[in-house]
Parts: sequence; C-alpha cells; structure tokens
Amino acid sequence: MFTRQVLDYGFVRVVDTMGDDSAIVQAARVSYGDGTKAPSDDRSLIRYLMRHWHSTPFEMCEVKLHVKLPVFVARQWIRHRTANVNEYSARYSIMDREFYVPDPQNICSQSTINKQGGADPVEPVLADAVQGMFIDASEGSYKEYDEMLEAGVARETARMVLPINVYTQWYWKVDLHNLFHFLRLRSDPHAQYEIRVYADAIAEFVAQWVPEAWAAFQDYRLNAMSLSAMEVECMKTLLMGADPAYENMSGREISEFEEKMKRMGVTDYD
Amino acid sequence: MFTRQVLDYGFVRVVDTMGDDSAIVQAARVSYGDGTKAPSDDRSLIRYLMRHWHSTPFEMCEVKLHVKLPVFVARQWIRHRTANVNEYSARYSIMDREFYVPDPQNICSQSTINKQGGADPVEPVLADAVQGMFIDASEGSYKEYDEMLEAGVARETARMVLPINVYTQWYWKVDLHNLFHFLRLRSDPHAQYEIRVYADAIAEFVAQWVPEAWAAFQDYRLNAMSLSAMEVECMKTLLMGADPAYENMSGREISEFEEKMKRMGVTDYD
Amino acid sequence: MFTRQVLDYGFVRVVDTMGDDSAIVQAARVSYGDGTKAPSDDRSLIRYLMRHWHSTPFEMCEVKLHVKLPVFVARQWIRHRTANVNEYSARYSIMDREFYVPDPQNICSQSTINKQGGADPVEPVLADAVQGMFIDASEGSYKEYDEMLEAGVARETARMVLPINVYTQWYWKVDLHNLFHFLRLRSDPHAQYEIRVYADAIAEFVAQWVPEAWAAFQDYRLNAMSLSAMEVECMKTLLMGADPAYENMSGREISEFEEKMKRMGVTDYD
Amino acid sequence: MFTRQVLDYGFVRVVDTMGDDSAIVQAARVSYGDGTKAPSDDRSLIRYLMRHWHSTPFEMCEVKLHVKLPVFVARQWIRHRTANVNEYSARYSIMDREFYVPDPQNICSQSTINKQGGADPVEPVLADAVQGMFIDASEGSYKEYDEMLEAGVARETARMVLPINVYTQWYWKVDLHNLFHFLRLRSDPHAQYEIRVYADAIAEFVAQWVPEAWAAFQDYRLNAMSLSAMEVECMKTLLMGADPAYENMSGREISEFEEKMKRMGVTDYD
Repeated sequence: MFTRQVLDYGFVRVVDTMGDDSAIVQAARVSYGDGTKAPSDDRSLIRYLMRHWHSTPFEMCEVKLHVKLPVFVARQWIRHRTANVNEYSARYSIMDREFYVPDPQNICSQSTINKQGGADPVEPVLADAVQGMFIDASEGSYKEYDEMLEAGVARETARMVLPINVYTQWYWKVDLHNLFHFLRLRSDPHAQYEIRVYADAIAEFVAQWVPEAWAAFQDYRLNAMSLSAMEVECMKTLLMGADPAYENMSGREISEFEEKMKRMGVTDYD
Repeated sequence: MFTRQVLDYGFVRVVDTMGDDSAIVQAARVSYGDGTKAPSDDRSLIRYLMRHWHSTPFEMCEVKLHVKLPVFVARQWIRHRTANVNEYSARYSIMDREFYVPDPQNICSQSTINKQGGADPVEPVLADAVQGMFIDASEGSYKEYDEMLEAGVARETARMVLPINVYTQWYWKVDLHNLFHFLRLRSDPHAQYEIRVYADAIAEFVAQWVPEAWAAFQDYRLNAMSLSAMEVECMKTLLMGADPAYENMSGREISEFEEKMKRMGVTDYD
Repeated sequence: MFTRQVLDYGFVRVVDTMGDDSAIVQAARVSYGDGTKAPSDDRSLIRYLMRHWHSTPFEMCEVKLHVKLPVFVARQWIRHRTANVNEYSARYSIMDREFYVPDPQNICSQSTINKQGGADPVEPVLADAVQGMFIDASEGSYKEYDEMLEAGVARETARMVLPINVYTQWYWKVDLHNLFHFLRLRSDPHAQYEIRVYADAIAEFVAQWVPEAWAAFQDYRLNAMSLSAMEVECMKTLLMGADPAYENMSGREISEFEEKMKRMGVTDYD
Repeated sequence: MFTRQVLDYGFVRVVDTMGDDSAIVQAARVSYGDGTKAPSDDRSLIRYLMRHWHSTPFEMCEVKLHVKLPVFVARQWIRHRTANVNEYSARYSIMDREFYVPDPQNICSQSTINKQGGADPVEPVLADAVQGMFIDASEGSYKEYDEMLEAGVARETARMVLPINVYTQWYWKVDLHNLFHFLRLRSDPHAQYEIRVYADAIAEFVAQWVPEAWAAFQDYRLNAMSLSAMEVECMKTLLMGADPAYENMSGREISEFEEKMKRMGVTDYD
C-alpha cells in the first residue's frame, strides 16, 4: 500500500479505500439516469460533476489513512470536522521521545506582509541556534515527563508538559469530497509548511487512486481562478483595451488582482 | 453480494464495504495501546468499546447500500444526516410506475394511545377498500403525470402530482456507528412498519458483516434497558421487597416502568 | 419579525436570530488579534474573511426560520445536512388540504438542453389543462386520504396517497455560513423555480440582518466568476488579442466559456 | 452574563444564547401538533422528548461561549465535531505567558485499574516537586519561544516549542442537544479532571438557562442507569430472590454490575 515519509518522524500510510473513479460515475448515474456508458463518457461525467459543484458522487469514495504527525499539525488538521478519527491517547499510553525539529530552510523570519506566515529562511547561524532551542526545549520537557512517570504520576497529568512538536498518530477516514476540500486548503501556499507536506503526500496518492477525479479537481479547483464581481469589471475594461478603474476595491484587493493578472500574462498595465 | 427484497417493489443491496470487526479493533488499538492480541481479546475489546460508548472505532467501518424505497420512507430515512446520499432525480429522469400498496395486515386502525402509530389491522373489508383507494390514487396520479410528460411539460413540474408512495432509489453510504444509531431508531417498535422492514434487512447484513460488533450492539443497546433516576428508586424499593412509591412520575412513566418490570418477570405488584 | 408569503400557500418567517455583522467580527478578532477597531475596519475584515474562504466566523451567526413549503421542495431543501429541523409529522397530525398549483408562467416545457430543467412557459391552453390536472390529482388524493381517516385507518398509512405538492411545514435552524451555501445553490438559475423563491425570500432577510456579510457574499460568491485552468489560458490568449484555442475543452465547456465572455462584453470573437 | 473562573487562568463566559425551554416546546409542537398548552404541559412535553430520545427539538436552542483553556483540554474538547469554533491563532498572534499548573490535590498517581486515569493524590513532597517541574518546563519553553520571537523567527515556527498546558481561547457555539452529549461525556467521572471542571461550569449555566430541559437531562441521562441484556437477566434473578448466574459476562462486567447494585442498595449477595 501507499506510504510516504513526511517530516522527520512522520508518515502517511493508506490503510484502506472504498471506491474509485468508477464509483463516482456509478453514483452519479443513479441520479442522472443512464445514457451512453462508453469509457470516454465516464471522464466527461466526472469533469461535469466537478465543474458544476455536484459534490455528492465524490462522497461515495472513502479513504482511511494512518498518519504520524506533530501535535500542532494535528490541531490544524482536526478542524476538518467531517471525518472520522482515532488518535493515540496520552492518557492510556506513554508518548515516544519523538519531536519535530524543522530543517534550516523551513525556519523563516516573521513575514511583515502576511501576519500568519513566514518570509525567507533566516540566516544559517540563527537557524542553527533555533534547532538547538528546539532540541533543548523538547529534551528538557521529555526529561520532566519521564521523571514524573518514573515517580508514579498519572500519565494524563505528566504529559501536560510535552510541547506541541511531539509526535502523535491517528487513523483518519474521510470521503473524497471532504478530502478535496482538505487538500484545497492545506496544499495552498498560505497553509503552514508542516501541514502542506502532508497534503502533498496525500495528493500524490489521490492522483493514483482516482486519476480522473484528481485531474478534474486540478482543472476546476486547484488551478482555477475566482474573480470577484469587481474583478470581472476590471477584466472587462482590460479586454476593451483600457485600464481598470478599481472601483470599490481596497489596496489589498488591487494587489490580489494584479497577482491574478500576472498569471494572465498582463504585467505592464497602469 | 447481499440483496434483500423489501416491501412490494423495494430492495436493499450492499454495494461495497470498508473494514469489518478487525478494523474496529485495529483503530481502537491506535488509541489504547497494544496489550495482548489474542483473538479472544478482540471480542472483549469490541464489547468494551460498545459498553462504554467509545464510538469512534466503529466509525472506521463503512458500508454503501443501493436502496429502492417509497418516497415517504426516504423522507424519514434522510433525517439521519451523517451519511452520504445520491438519489434518483425526478427532474432528470422519468419516474417508474411503481407504487407501494400495503398488505392487508399492515393496514391498521389509528391507535388512540400512541398518537403516531397504528393499532390492530383493520377489518378485511376495509383493508380491501384501502388497497383499492391506494391503487386508484396512485394510478390516477400517474396517469396525470404521464399525460403531462406526453404534452411536453417539464419533468420537474409534472412529477409534483405523484404521491409519496411512489418508489425512488438511492445510494446511501454510512459508517457503522451511525448505522447502529439508524438501526436502533428504525428497528424500534415505534418506528413505522415500512421503514422497519428496511432496518431489519440491513440488520441481517450487519450481523454477517461484523458479527462481534453486532452481538455487542444487541447486548448493550438493542436489548439493553435504560432506567431513569426515578425508576432506579423504584427498583431499589422492589429489591427491598416493598412497592414502589412512583414519586415524581407521570401516569405515562408509571406504565412505561410496568412494561419494563414485565420483562423482569415482575407482574403482580400493585 | 420578517415574514414573506411564498408560492400559493407557503411562507418564510424568521423566528429568531443569534448575532449579526458584529458577531462575525468579534469571532474573527479572537483568531486574528485585535488591531484597530474603527467601524470602517469591520467592513474590511468581513470582506477579507469572505474573499479568503475563512468560513468559521460566519458560523457564529445563526437563524431559525419557520417555513411552510410543498413536500417536493422540502425534499430538495433537506439535502443541506448541516442544519436543525423539526418538521410537521403526518404520523401524529392530519395534513391540511393545501396543495401547490403552479401559476401558468411557471409551467414550462421540458428543456432539451438542460435535462434537469424547464424551457419556456407552455401555451396558455396547456397551462390551463395542467392546472386542472394538478387540482384533480390533489383533490382526488385528498379525498381518498380523508375517507381513510374517516374509516379509522392510521394516519401514518392514509397519508401515503398524498402527492408531493402537499404543503408541510418546519422549523429550520442554520448558521450563516451554511445558509450562504444554501443560498448559492438554491438561488442559482439551475435550481428549480419553486425552491428559488424561498431562497430569494431568505436572501431578502439576510440582506437586512447582516448587510456587510451579504454585500461581501454578493461580490465574492454570487456575482463572482470562476475560471477553470483551461479558461484561464483562453483569457490569456484573448488578452493578447488572439482567439482562444480551446485546448482540452468539450463543446459544452466552450459554450460555458462563451457565456462568461458575454458577461465580459466579448461577443464577437471567432 | 454568566462567567465562571475555571482552573488557574481559564474561564467560561456565555456570549449569547438562542431560545430556552419554551423554544424546545415550540419546535416540538410543530411536529406533534397543538393539544393543550397549559404551562404544566410544557414540562411534561420536555420530559417526554428527553425520555424518548426525540433530540431535534433540543437542537433548536443554541449557546455561544467564550472559553479560555489549556491546549490539552482544547484537544479533547474539539473532538465534539458538531459545533462551531473560532480559536486564537498562534500563527497570527503571540501566545501569553500563561500555563496551567495543577493544584496538589489534582496530581494523582497512575491508576493500575483504570489505564486512562489517575488514582489518589500523590504525597505532598512529590506534588510539590511536580509543580516545580511544571513551572520549570513551562518557563523554560516560554523563554525559548520568546527568544526566537525576539530573533525574528516566524510566530508559526517559534510556538512549536510551547507545551500543551499553555492557555488558548476560543468562541465555541453549539446546540443544546450536542451540548448535553458533551456534558454527559465530559462531566463523567472517567473524564479527565481538567475538562470536567469546564463541563461543570457549563452545566451550572445550563441549569439556569433551560431549567426544565436540565432537570429532564439529569433524570433520564446523567442519573439514569443502563442495564445490558445480561444485566437485565441478573436483575430478574435477583428480583426472584436468587443469586445471578452472570452468564456470558466477563469479570469486568460483573464488577460493573456490582457497582450498579450498590446504587440499588444490594451489597450482600454472593
């Protein structure tokens, strides 16, 4: 089965799946009637469903993953509520001495533009110091944890000193529609690096598992572009050869529009 | 695969499953640690999980059903929200001329005790008349439907005259925990007969699919008995050999308690 | 409180609300920190949240509606699972003699392009005949229903002959994020007319209740335009003054793109 | 509005509510018809709904809380999926220097019977040492966190060294049915002390907010007793004056039954 190492101690492992591209088609045909059933039509049907936000047929596929991940990643992940989870319990069991320590290129300085993210990697000297602080803090906490356990303190209490970069693991089961939603949010450049790499590993599997649905997801979601009502007006102006007036748009929205225009090859207007 | 005929034109057909008893155990062991793994322990673990309402491991099993059912049954069924559904669309497709007509023994008189249910079967003559009315109403409606379609009226409009005993069909996918909840409510004697027979057919499959979980479900849910705080007091009094005082209990609650006592073999107190 | 008559016997009535625009801002500020709190910022913050799909603050508003609606509309509506519902029970209570009969302009011929919809209104003579058939079928069914009740047949059985244009009613409670999703799907031109008018009535209320969130919803969802990866390429070509190559696009997709271009004022290319 | 201090730095604060006991009754009456409406009937109706697991009317009440809580409590809490949440973001904002340190009486030794819990409080000397370790680990981690922030490291990275006893906060919105489910699981003696105190604070509010629903919840859920099929057989035997045979019951189940019998005042059988 599909397995990928993620981060320093983590992994994503596929435990089981239900359905594939043909299950999507099968479910859709219950709703939309029979019609022609040539293989070429399956592809078109899947693309039509994705394009028109007919999400229920995608819910007919299900995947169960075994994931090992740092606690702070688990905290972001669990916000996706429409899924089933069984997590390792630090009340029942002893946590392993495994902590996530970021690689130097993933230790970034605080972005001043994007309040929630990092900018460029910090200087090597600082990166080195940060890794040292991670190791010190983690080892120090684990030592306290271990001593408390040794002294007979309840596991549910002792574990409270462990840091959020400690690894946990869980079984996570989700349908394909909700998995696509997860992937859209978590493979986005605004998502934190440490969850993005899990999303990327899962995406790699999804591309093998349901290739037609995955291709449609890329074309109509991941690589699609959404234009606001105001941006539609701007585009209209641009298509007439004039410069957009940016009515009712904030400075931030204007620069978001300019980003989109870069992708359209329009860079020299203004 | 498992298929059962239900009612006159309906059926339940298992399309796919994910997991079985061992998947429940596997997921639980992620949370609760390893311990002994002898086959006998699997059974105990499943029973422990069920008894203590640890529901997440049961969510690790999933089943997909293809069901054909009258619209009024579908309306009750769909109230179970934690499931995935793809239903036949009467906007896209033409509805078949298939209507549920109850058998004489299932045509009951209105209960005067239970406002939502039926009492005993009606007299044969009336049952016969009722079947006639069902057939007349259904055929009459379908004739209007058919004529409208012939005249070119949109399917989405024409279908509005069809009665709720017309058959529809859907794919329904649900996890085992939520399926147990469905079975508990819908195989209950208070559930309407016409949905209960679907619950019974599904229960027959579940017993084959996850025999240990099914046995635990029977022992700790279906055949369990819940005693209210007041009923616990009554039992206490009975166990001391005295008659219960029925404090803070309505007449209705008292007769519900007497029902429970009948099952306990206590019938002569009063 | 807000009430709107919908269709012939239906209505939407607001029973209660929790929160408003300021509750969205309040919740967002828990996540994103304080910063300036001038009224002008509230508006920007709401627009930012909508634009970037930060949906959880919108979940902090809740509305409870009392709705009277035909059963076939209720069947479409209930597919929105993240909501709370209490519906009138035809097992407990007797259904009123109230049936939806479409106005002539809403009796359309079957569309040949859009399999799930209607095209233009049918000829007045046919519309008249259809209304007659609706009334006949509804009255005929109700007569059977009434006779069965008179004869003492259980309500849960007798009601099975009623058609899906009979009116039911329910309390429906939903958060604003999920309500927006409902409105997006059900106020869409592809939605059936009879549910669209309910969506329109609710939209009218939402515009009063949370004016900033509503404005943002219009600008970034309802009146936004989504371009697929292929359509982005087409736009790029158009912006360079050339004709799009339509690579990897089906005939249907090409005409969907042409529709979008019409809105952009581009009609003469090709 | 209702506010309670919980643990050393935490709190529960009620932000808003929708509905109360009368909203439950109002919703139920949509389903079950009108009938008499004397105040005494409202109470009976609420008790009937609770007793017979008619949960949807309870979903018509909603409450929004502002809660400050340690991360490890938040992790247990968030497993209740049917709720809305906006949490403080350690990617956007700097975490406060506030850590949970348990009081001596809540530092227990590991239970040997209950793998997931604690037994009696540890010796004062050890409790003192544990508190010291908590403070050292927390202060040490926060110092590393603070230094990284000073050095310009991104907040999303620096916060990874913080321990799970650090305080976070969120808005949490939930309907009454799901809140009851939360309270049942989290005010249970098997729940960890640190989440139980939050459940207790919320319960105190619920008792004021919906007194009739709360009373019913206590009588039919919290203080109810569930007997398995096997336990029903044991009770039957006891009521006949004989000793139970404990057929098909594990050692663990037998002691669970004996616990229940203690509550029934039966202690001397065997």
